[in-house]
Amino acid sequence: MAWPQTVKIVEVGARDGLQNESAEVSTAIRIELIERLAAAGLTAVETGAFVSPKKVPQMAGSRDVFQGLKRRRGTTYPALVPNMKGFEAAIETGVTEIAVFVSASEGFSQHNIACSRAESIERLRDVAEAATDRDVRMRGYVSCIAGCPYDGAVAPDDVAAMAEALVALGCYEISLGDTIGVGTAGQIRKLIEHISTRIPRKKLAMHFHDTYGQGVANVLASLEEGISVFDSSVAGLGGCPFAPGASGNVATEDVVYLLQGLGIETGIDLMAVARTGDWISRHLGRANAARAGKALLAAKKEDDAHGG
Amino acid sequence: MAWPQTVKIVEVGARDGLQNESAEVSTAIRIELIERLAAAGLTAVETGAFVSPKKVPQMAGSRDVFQGLKRRRGTTYPALVPNMKGFEAAIETGVTEIAVFVSASEGFSQHNIACSRAESIERLRDVAEAATDRDVRMRGYVSCIAGCPYDGAVAPDDVAAMAEALVALGCYEISLGDTIGVGTAGQIRKLIEHISTRIPRKKLAMHFHDTYGQGVANVLASLEEGISVFDSSVAGLGGCPFAPGASGNVATEDVVYLLQGLGIETGIDLMAVARTGDWISRHLGRANAARAGKALLAAKKEDDAHGG
Repeated sequence: MAWPQTVKIVEVGARDGLQNESAEVSTAIRIELIERLAAAGLTAVETGAFVSPKKVPQMAGSRDVFQGLKRRRGTTYPALVPNMKGFEAAIETGVTEIAVFVSASEGFSQHNIACSRAESIERLRDVAEAATDRDVRMRGYVSCIAGCPYDGAVAPDDVAAMAEALVALGCYEISLGDTIGVGTAGQIRKLIEHISTRIPRKKLAMHFHDTYGQGVANVLASLEEGISVFDSSVAGLGGCPFAPGASGNVATEDVVYLLQGLGIETGIDLMAVARTGDWISRHLGRANAARAGKALLAAKKEDDAHGG
Repeated sequence: MAWPQTVKIVEVGARDGLQNESAEVSTAIRIELIERLAAAGLTAVETGAFVSPKKVPQMAGSRDVFQGLKRRRGTTYPALVPNMKGFEAAIETGVTEIAVFVSASEGFSQHNIACSRAESIERLRDVAEAATDRDVRMRGYVSCIAGCPYDGAVAPDDVAAMAEALVALGCYEISLGDTIGVGTAGQIRKLIEHISTRIPRKKLAMHFHDTYGQGVANVLASLEEGISVFDSSVAGLGGCPFAPGASGNVATEDVVYLLQGLGIETGIDLMAVARTGDWISRHLGRANAARAGKALLAAKKEDDAHGG
């Protein structure tokens, strides 16, 4: 029961989340979402992606989002960029931190970005150099760390190799993503133990999906392995394209509720996140997938009704 | 990472679950639900309650359910009984295992059954004696182990005292229930450590609600404490009367998915439970709260569509 004393949450709802929601969201709402999340104490708020608007229409207005945003000092607003074109568009809007992504599995790499894993690293080389030249911080995502919708099982060595390649490109932190949410606690612990023989734990973040209901349990398992950075999504925004109707990213509210219960500092105002999750869920016309968020708001309503 | 090799699930959806659902359910559907769960390999399927039909209308037809049920050899079908009247009604229908309940908090005891904790134990004395006389197995529930909607925090000593009182009455197992789902992993582990100094772990079961999204993580924390019996509810049936709209019992599908991932034997056919959860959710006109269940069925549909 030796958990980290402080944990950083990387809020991905406004990018990874919205990117996988079917509802259209205006630039104004995206900006309000990001500003509310930052105001709630989230110090890393993924803001947009400079990707093909044909492939990812939900992120088409990212330039306007970045330009319209009131930025808080001390908060980072990362943008996902797949290539130099995206990098340059991001830099033009004042982006100071980028995220790049690769897959631990060959099948997902081919299906998602139409190239091999090895090619995906090569393709990022010019972006990495440009980012270094301009002092732009770079975070790396490795997807399919616990299983692939095309290849099935994924070897821990493959995850480690892709993570190492991203570190070699200059990423300051690697977010290991269980993209389809199939991992369970024992597998996650073994994976972290394996990878941490090659990359220090302080450079690792975990990114869980709640598709099979394991998101919060996998955060707990990772804390027990000394991981102190987690990606999560307000209201559990985002679905799973490989299991339509299934849950998506683990909800920020559920993770922060766990962390508070363990006495771990996050600097986050959970009630403010819960209100934001409720607001954006209503706006999208979807159920709020954050159980802690729903419960906190329902309990508050009961209290208020009884004059509490 | 030393988990038990086998785990027993006590399926509570057809009693604790349905009791907290607003939809009316016919005797025939209740029987079908119980029979499907037993056929899926669940060896303990809570079946009904012999309680006041005015207070708990959902359980009014429990006599008919027990009488209509085809029982499987090796499966137990416990009934909740609050008093001698309930006990006698249960015995008449051939019930061979009963469950009795008390609260770890004074406020919940007063609000729920209108007597003190001490009185609640005294009231069960004749039931306990009658059960012993007739060789009827008796399981005990302690509610509000991690917090009370009226009293707030609950002392571990109070939980231990009520659990010990139930053991003294003759209960073969004590199910410790986080009735409002507020507990987190560290608190649960400390509570189990505390209680296990007074009651052997093999006599303890844990009963979690997913109200704050912690159900599966708390199961994991309990496994790490050597607990090997868990209550759960197919499709997450049941709500939380203290936080309307919030999630209820942790879903059997999500728990079994975790256990399978950890390589723990349960003897349960997860796909059959998932299908049953989907079926009863549709019947009740509610969303299926089992994320693993939804994901397994969605993934299967995708497979089937691709001829897999």
